[in-house]
Order: sequence, then structure tokens, then C-alpha cells
Amino acid sequence: MRNIKIIGCGAALPENTVKFGDNIRYRMTNGQTLLDLIERAVAQALSDAGVTINDIDLILGGTATPLQGIPCNAALVHERIAKGSSIPAFDINSSCTSFITAFDMASYLIDAGRYKKILIFSGDTASAALNPNQKESFELFSDAAAAFVVTRGNGDSGVIGAKQCTYSEGVHDTEIRGGCGLLPSFALTDKNREDYYFDMKGVRVLKLTAKKVPGFLDDFLRETGITLNDVDMFIPHQASKALSLIMKKLGIPEDKYIDHVRDWGNMISAAVPMALYTAINENRIKRGDKVVMFGTAAGLTINILLMQY
Amino acid sequence: MRNIKIIGCGAALPENTVKFGDNIRYRMTNGQTLLDLIERAVAQALSDAGVTINDIDLILGGTATPLQGIPCNAALVHERIAKGSSIPAFDINSSCTSFITAFDMASYLIDAGRYKKILIFSGDTASAALNPNQKESFELFSDAAAAFVVTRGNGDSGVIGAKQCTYSEGVHDTEIRGGCGLLPSFALTDKNREDYYFDMKGVRVLKLTAKKVPGFLDDFLRETGITLNDVDMFIPHQASKALSLIMKKLGIPEDKYIDHVRDWGNMISAAVPMALYTAINENRIKRGDKVVMFGTAAGLTINILLMQY
Repeated sequence: MRNIKIIGCGAALPENTVKFGDNIRYRMTNGQTLLDLIERAVAQALSDAGVTINDIDLILGGTATPLQGIPCNAALVHERIAKGSSIPAFDINSSCTSFITAFDMASYLIDAGRYKKILIFSGDTASAALNPNQKESFELFSDAAAAFVVTRGNGDSGVIGAKQCTYSEGVHDTEIRGGCGLLPSFALTDKNREDYYFDMKGVRVLKLTAKKVPGFLDDFLRETGITLNDVDMFIPHQASKALSLIMKKLGIPEDKYIDHVRDWGNMISAAVPMALYTAINENRIKRGDKVVMFGTAAGLTINILLMQY
Repeated sequence: MRNIKIIGCGAALPENTVKFGDNIRYRMTNGQTLLDLIERAVAQALSDAGVTINDIDLILGGTATPLQGIPCNAALVHERIAKGSSIPAFDINSSCTSFITAFDMASYLIDAGRYKKILIFSGDTASAALNPNQKESFELFSDAAAAFVVTRGNGDSGVIGAKQCTYSEGVHDTEIRGGCGLLPSFALTDKNREDYYFDMKGVRVLKLTAKKVPGFLDDFLRETGITLNDVDMFIPHQASKALSLIMKKLGIPEDKYIDHVRDWGNMISAAVPMALYTAINENRIKRGDKVVMFGTAAGLTINILLMQY
């Protein structure tokens, strides 16, 4: 077990909500930016952990989308929360499951003693790129941010196993093609406007997910030497309303996973840490529990991590 | 020493060059993209290592700029080099020094046995965002890609020490503000066009670098228990023509570092691995040598890594 212990968490949603039928979605307005949300989530996580920013020795971004073309998100967050310090800051990006990859990498760094306390943040500006003409995605996503403080435990908490696979036959099923290196902002015209919006081919994503997830999960369970029954709580990526169908198909009972897609929507990289935050704050997991973070991401990437909380 | 051994490397430059006085710069034309360059660099690295893509168990991007808003660069590269496989793929971003951070993280993963062979790639599309009105940066940057294959050695190669610091008082000195979450492409107007170009305040960067680097380097040498004389070769980020001045100030003699700024320009995240590639291919380093990768990045981040090659 790789030594890592969660000692604090925080989350932030924009005040502004919109409703699509029964579904509540959070969207930033009035000049509020993701940096404001991350700053709030970080303040809560630090306070929850009983530490200050001066106790942190790495600021690690686990985000799916860039805030700027340069520099990395973690440097921009550094300015908000750690200006004047020399705390290192960098990003890890595996799209929607970036928090899982960042947490996984953090476990190696903590376990090896490189850093003592790491602040991991996640969050994306969904509302900046939603296409009003693509109802399925336009009505699905929310803006949000989450932050966690992790440190070394007494050997009672840690990562038991983790696995990631990427299947690039699905790479163009979830995209924002424009705005960056391959298709710069300057190339935007009335004709290619759709290329600069978030574009999700939902049915294709679901088909590839349904094809790859069961085998991936079987491999992980076998490699880790556990069964689904050994897991106390699943923290899945809140990808879409299909979540409950997928969990049913995998044989995971309703009381063993967090599902707030209807109320919160898909919050991209913040979705997994927000669900973990919920599980912790609603006392749905307790110290020593076996907790699985799990999700699919644009790529198509499947990511899973089993920890003892 | 964290076990990691370089067993193959590759690099690729665009065919097209431009000249500013004595300085040669490489810029992609005719629809060539960074993915083409990365594909070439990867093919060379795999061949050099005597392996195929099927021997690789992680594709790790160490890049400063996104190719698309979603997904991460490594997923897009995966489609070019590993389509049909399930090799995991994700990005690490510490701006210009992303290769150093990626190599550092890879050393933890290799050392702990998580992955056996990791492919690290770097590269950016400088030419997509250069501002013709900002002569200093317009005449400095080149497009390029580099790739390395790393694996576990017999204990004779590895990372001896590494250190990163971020000083966000310099975060706005090197930026591409537009195109992403904070300032989307849709907000581009004739008036704010400059916000979508690469913007470098060279004098400010140099001043902050000069202020922070000496102390940072002293701390690293002390923490690692070595002196500058113990280092056989320095692989610095090719930030600008000021490189030779900075190295002189640090007391590093000319024959102990790679400087190809005049001929190749600043290749952003590809600059450090291209310099390392040069050192290896020109036999300026041999197995067992103590090699330091070192650089400043937008952030402002300072990054250093000492390895036994």
C-alpha cells in the first residue's frame, strides 16, 4: 500500500444555477472565474486539514482543460493562493479523470518522501465552451472546483492499487478542437465555430465505455486481488445520467456509490473529487474503508484507484 | 538514487526554416502539425531503444501548451502511435520545463515498478501563437518535438536528486492569455488580439531569474550534497541568447553545457530534451556521467534534476 492520507477537502460551486427540467446545473456569471472557485475550495480544504498554505510543499493541478495557453493552471492558482512563496506547482491531465491520476501520482511522491503535504485541485470552466446547439452536452455540464490536502499517514491509509488504460479509437468522441495549438483562436470563422465548442458524441462514448469497462474492471480486480464486495464505496465520475445504468450493469448496488448527476451535472475533472468530498462530508465513508475512484475520460481513458481511506 | 535509465531518444524539426540575422528558426508550414513531428521523434526513439510501441506501458506527455482544449495531448499522440492498444496516456505540464518534471515523475513510477517502459514526449507549436509585433519573442522560438524511452536499469542509472520551485510573482511575464478557459476564442476581437498571442516580458523574466536562480541552485547543491564540479554536463533550457551570460555568472564553463539557441531557438518544452538528445548523440555524455537538466519556465518555475546517465 502506497502511503497517502486525505486530511482535508473543499469544494466550490458558482452561485448561479440554471434548470433543464429536473436537472440543476451550475454556471459562472458576472465575471466570476474558475480561479475564484478554486481559491474558495482550497481555503476550505486547508482549513479542514488544519493547515495553512505554508505547510504545503506541492500544488498539483488535476484538471482537464487549460485556463490559458501558457502557463499551466497550477501556476495561475499559485498566484491566487501562494504568491510570494516558492512552492512548486504543476499540472497533471488525463482529461475528466485528472484527479484520479493526480492522486495516484501524489501517492508515489508522498510514499517516497519527496513531499510532505500536497494540495491537489481540480476544476474546469465547462460554461466557456458549451454549444447551445448540442442539447445533450449543453444541458449536462456544470462549473465547479474541488481541492484536497494529502499527507503521509501512519500506514493505515493509502493506495492499494490503480490502473489506467487509454483507447484512442475514441479520441475524437469528446473534444474541444479549437483554441489551442492545432486550431488557434485566430482561425475561428463563422463556418468552423462548432470546432471551438465542446463536442461530445454521447452514443459513441457510451458504446466504447460499455465495450471496454467490464474487461478493464475484471483485470483490475484480478490484479489487485479483490472482489467488488470488498469495496465499501465507489466514487464514480459523474459522466451522465447513464451512470446508474452502468453501475447496475456492473452489479454495484445503489447504496454503494455516489450519484449526484441530476443535481450537480457532469463537473468534468471536479466530478470525482466532488463526489469524494460528498462521501466524506455525508459520512458515507469512514477511516479504514476501501474506496474506489473510477471513471472514463475523453481519450477514451478509463481510470481506477482503490484506496484505504 | 531512483532507478531510471534512458534507452532511446528521438527528435524532429520542421523542414521549413526562417532566418533572423544569424539565427535559424524552425517553423511548420503546409499543414504540418506538431503531431507529425512527435510521431517522427517517437519512431526514432523507439528504434533507438530497439523496442516497439507494444513494449511501452505508459505514454507520458511533457508539454507546455495544449494541442486541443480537450483531450490531453498524450491521448492525441496515442491515436498516432498506439491506436488499438490500451496503453495509458496522460500529460504533465510545468510549462517550458515539462520534460524535466515528466522525467522526474517517471523515475518514481519506474523505481516503484508501476511501469516498465515509459515513452516521454515533448513539443509545442510555437508558430501558432507568435506575435509579429513582439520582435523579441517572434524571432526567438522554434517548433520541435522530442521523445525518450526510459526503463529500469541495473542500479547504475537514475535520478540522484530533483527540485522545483514556482514563484508566481512572475506568472504574467510569460503567457498566452487567450484561447482557453479564462478568455475563450469566442471573445477574440480586433482590440484584444494581442491577448491571444504569446507574450513575453523578457527583461522582467531575466530579472526574476537572476534574482532566484543562484539561491535555488545553492539550495539544490547543498540538499543533494554535490558541487558544480561534480557535474559532467549541464543540459539547460534554451531560453534565450542570455543563456551563455547566465551560465558564465553561475560559473559553468562553456564545454560543460549545451547551447544551441542561435541555431535552433527556444523550442519551449522540447528545448531540454533536444539538448539532452544532442549531448547523447554527439557523445558529449557517456554512461555513468552526472548530468543536470535545468531550466526556468513560465510560472515562473525553476526546475533542476541531477541524474547518473
